[in-house]
Amino acid sequence: MNLRRVMLDVDKARARPDMIEIAAAIEASPGVQAVNITVKEIDVETVGMEVTVVGEHIDYDALITAINDTGAVVHSTDEMVAGTHIVEHVPRAR
Amino acid sequence: MNLRRVMLDVDKARARPDMIEIAAAIEASPGVQAVNITVKEIDVETVGMEVTVVGEHIDYDALITAINDTGAVVHSTDEMVAGTHIVEHVPRAR
Amino acid sequence: MNLRRVMLDVDKARARPDMIEIAAAIEASPGVQAVNITVKEIDVETVGMEVTVVGEHIDYDALITAINDTGAVVHSTDEMVAGTHIVEHVPRAR
Amino acid sequence: MNLRRVMLDVDKARARPDMIEIAAAIEASPGVQAVNITVKEIDVETVGMEVTVVGEHIDYDALITAINDTGAVVHSTDEMVAGTHIVEHVPRAR
Amino acid sequence: MNLRRVMLDVDKARARPDMIEIAAAIEASPGVQAVNITVKEIDVETVGMEVTVVGEHIDYDALITAINDTGAVVHSTDEMVAGTHIVEHVPRAR
Amino acid sequence: MNLRRVMLDVDKARARPDMIEIAAAIEASPGVQAVNITVKEIDVETVGMEVTVVGEHIDYDALITAINDTGAVVHSTDEMVAGTHIVEHVPRAR
Amino acid sequence: MNLRRVMLDVDKARARPDMIEIAAAIEASPGVQAVNITVKEIDVETVGMEVTVVGEHIDYDALITAINDTGAVVHSTDEMVAGTHIVEHVPRAR
Repeated sequence: MNLRRVMLDVDKARARPDMIEIAAAIEASPGVQAVNITVKEIDVETVGMEVTVVGEHIDYDALITAINDTGAVVHSTDEMVAGTHIVEHVPRAR
Repeated sequence: MNLRRVMLDVDKARARPDMIEIAAAIEASPGVQAVNITVKEIDVETVGMEVTVVGEHIDYDALITAINDTGAVVHSTDEMVAGTHIVEHVPRAR
Repeated sequence: MNLRRVMLDVDKARARPDMIEIAAAIEASPGVQAVNITVKEIDVETVGMEVTVVGEHIDYDALITAINDTGAVVHSTDEMVAGTHIVEHVPRAR
Repeated sequence: MNLRRVMLDVDKARARPDMIEIAAAIEASPGVQAVNITVKEIDVETVGMEVTVVGEHIDYDALITAINDTGAVVHSTDEMVAGTHIVEHVPRAR
Repeated sequence: MNLRRVMLDVDKARARPDMIEIAAAIEASPGVQAVNITVKEIDVETVGMEVTVVGEHIDYDALITAINDTGAVVHSTDEMVAGTHIVEHVPRAR
Repeated sequence: MNLRRVMLDVDKARARPDMIEIAAAIEASPGVQAVNITVKEIDVETVGMEVTVVGEHIDYDALITAINDTGAVVHSTDEMVAGTHIVEHVPRAR
Repeated sequence: MNLRRVMLDVDKARARPDMIEIAAAIEASPGVQAVNITVKEIDVETVGMEVTVVGEHIDYDALITAINDTGAVVHSTDEMVAGTHIVEHVPRAR
């Protein structure tokens, strides 16, 4: 299966790791071409981020491991896109 | 009939199957080119997903079977697109 | 007249016909190139759908007949587009 | 003057004329290339439609006459676009 | 100065002039290429319109005179665009 | 530094200067290619405008001086874009 | 790691530094191609800005230092994009 895009909900402690460490770890993960880390919430202790990862044949397990190894925590996987091209989610009409 | 896009409402138990299993099963289904699995709700027990599948001559019954065989449940079919090209739903003006 | 796009409000019973039967019937109708069937409501008894049909010289009467013959019911026609190309509805500024 | 687009508010009785009659009458009117008839309201007696007509050197008076001759009623003209190309309305910032 | 686009708030009495007279007067004004007249309000007495005029080296004074000569009234100028190309207004982030 | 776009909040008295004077003054300012003046508020005394100026190597001080010399008042600078190309503001996800 | 875009929350005192100083400092920072400084809030004392920086191999630490050296304060980093191309944040469907 050609995994092309993954969206993850990731938390980190305010101090460490830095976002740049997480970005570097993800970018270096097998099959990853590019990553967008967007901060959604900043609390006293933690920073909540939405991470969008694109690539070709992304190694999902390696990606999760790479993020966890930085000290950040993958909360959930919000989207997966696989196949010949990236298909966008079409909002339901209901 | 050339079925080109199908949108499904699919639920799975939190533990199994993994989203990646469902993505792989769908991608391997006859006529499928690409799939977007987007998480809509996460409850204590279940994960609600909206699945957008595109391809050429998608085998609808095989697709439903492939998803059910992973242990996920197809709740409903929300959209079907067939013909020479993908036609988007145009919201009514009423 | 070159009828190029028709939008219909169509209901069906929950059990029959299947959406795929309706899609096939529409796609096979004279002048039809592609169809989008989008589910708007699902009640205990019925499923409400918005059907967008595009083509060249669509045979309107044959289209309505084809849908009704599947057992679904055409509630209303919401849009018609005719001529050299598809013109989108421009929302009024009033 | 090169009238290129006209938007009209048109009502018809529920029974007659059919939308397809109105579409045909408009499409055949001098200078018309294409037409979009979008239903905005359906009451017990009448159907309210927003009609978008595009073309080159549209004959405005002939267009109004053609619509009225079908038995429909032109309520108002909501937009006119003339000149070398179609200019869209830009919403005011005030 | 190369005036390329002007947006005007224009009122007219319900009866006269016709929108088509105003469109013709504007289109014939020096430097005008195209015009969009969009109806914003229709009261008992008057019709409020938003007029978008595009061209090259539009003669602003001649444009205002042309509109007033039809019997319509230019209420205000809402936008002016000048220079080598049309620059859109970018909504403030504040 | 290659200043490419500047957005300014500018006020003027209702009577003078005319918008066309301000547009001309800005267009003639060093490095300016095009300008959009959009009216945001019209009070009894003043007219509030949002001015979007694009160019190459815009001379910021000369631009402010040119506007003030017309008798209008630069209230604030709302955006600056510099570099090899125009980068749009991306709204925060927080 | 190829850092391609960074979004920062930056505050400055109303008087100094000028936005143009901050823009120049950022544009001159290693790896930066272009910058958008957008004012979000203006209080009695301070101006709150959202700064979008794009480039190739942006030197993150040098960028932060360059901004702080102008006398402005980097409040937080809101987004980082790294890799072969700029990936936009896709809003969650949950």
